[in-house]
Amino acid sequence: MAASLVGLSLPAAAQFAKPEDAIKYRQNALFVMGQHVSRVGAMAAGRAPYDAKLAADSADIIADMAKLPWAGFVPGSDKGGNTRARPEIWTEQVKFMQSSDKLIADTARLAAVARSGNLENLKTAFAATAGTCKSCHDAFRSQ
Amino acid sequence: MAASLVGLSLPAAAQFAKPEDAIKYRQNALFVMGQHVSRVGAMAAGRAPYDAKLAADSADIIADMAKLPWAGFVPGSDKGGNTRARPEIWTEQVKFMQSSDKLIADTARLAAVARSGNLENLKTAFAATAGTCKSCHDAFRSQ
Repeated sequence: MAASLVGLSLPAAAQFAKPEDAIKYRQNALFVMGQHVSRVGAMAAGRAPYDAKLAADSADIIADMAKLPWAGFVPGSDKGGNTRARPEIWTEQVKFMQSSDKLIADTARLAAVARSGNLENLKTAFAATAGTCKSCHDAFRSQ
Repeated sequence: MAASLVGLSLPAAAQFAKPEDAIKYRQNALFVMGQHVSRVGAMAAGRAPYDAKLAADSADIIADMAKLPWAGFVPGSDKGGNTRARPEIWTEQVKFMQSSDKLIADTARLAAVARSGNLENLKTAFAATAGTCKSCHDAFRSQ
C-alpha cells in the first residue's frame, strides 16, 4: 500500500539532483522556520518583549516556510546525509502528509493572529503550532 | 562611516542566539532558493521540459526566499561557521543592500512573469535574476 502512494502523495525525486540535496533542502527549510518559531515562542513565553511587528513578520515567514520541507522527503532520501528521518515517513505517508497539512494550516492561522496584534491570541495560536511540531517530531523524527 | 550604518541598514545581531546561527540561516535560505533557481534555470536553458506550473511554483518560492538571507548578515557574523562572506559586506553595506534589494525586485518580476506562462519572457526574467546573483557573488562572496 505504501508503494502505491508514492506517486500520489510525495513529490518526485527527480526534482533533486541527489538524495543529499533533498535532505539538505528539508533540513534547511526547517532550520529557517525554526529560527522564527524560536523568536515568536520567546515572545509567547514572555522570555522576550512582545513586538507585534517582529512577531507578525516572523509568523509570515513561518507560514511560508511550513509549506516547503515536505517536498524534500522524496523516495530514496531516507538515507544519505545526516538525517533523523524515521522510516515511518515513507511507510505511513498518509499520516505524515496529514501532519504536514496540519502544520501548514496552523501556521497560516498563526500568521493571521500575529497580524491582529493580540498577544493572548498569539500565545494560543503558537501553542497549537508548537504542539503540531512536537507530535510530528515524536512520530517521525529519531531522537 | 560603515559603523554608523550598522544600526540603520543591517538587522540586529540579537535576533540570533549566536553568529553560527546567523550564518546557517542565510546559507540555508540561499540553498533553498538555489534549488528552485536551478529548476527554473534548467527550463529557461532548455535542459528540462518547460512546465509552467512547476516554473511558477518555484519562482514564487524564489521570490519569498530572496527576502530572507540578508537578515543573517548581522555584525559579528563575518567569522564563525564555514562562511564565504567577504568583509566588503560590512564595509560596503550600502552597495550590499542595493544588491539584495535588486534581487528582491528581480525575483518578484520573475514570479509575475512565470505566472503568465510565457517561456520567452521567463528566459528574459531569469537571465536578469541570474545576473543579479552573479554580480553580488562576484563582489561579496569568496571564490
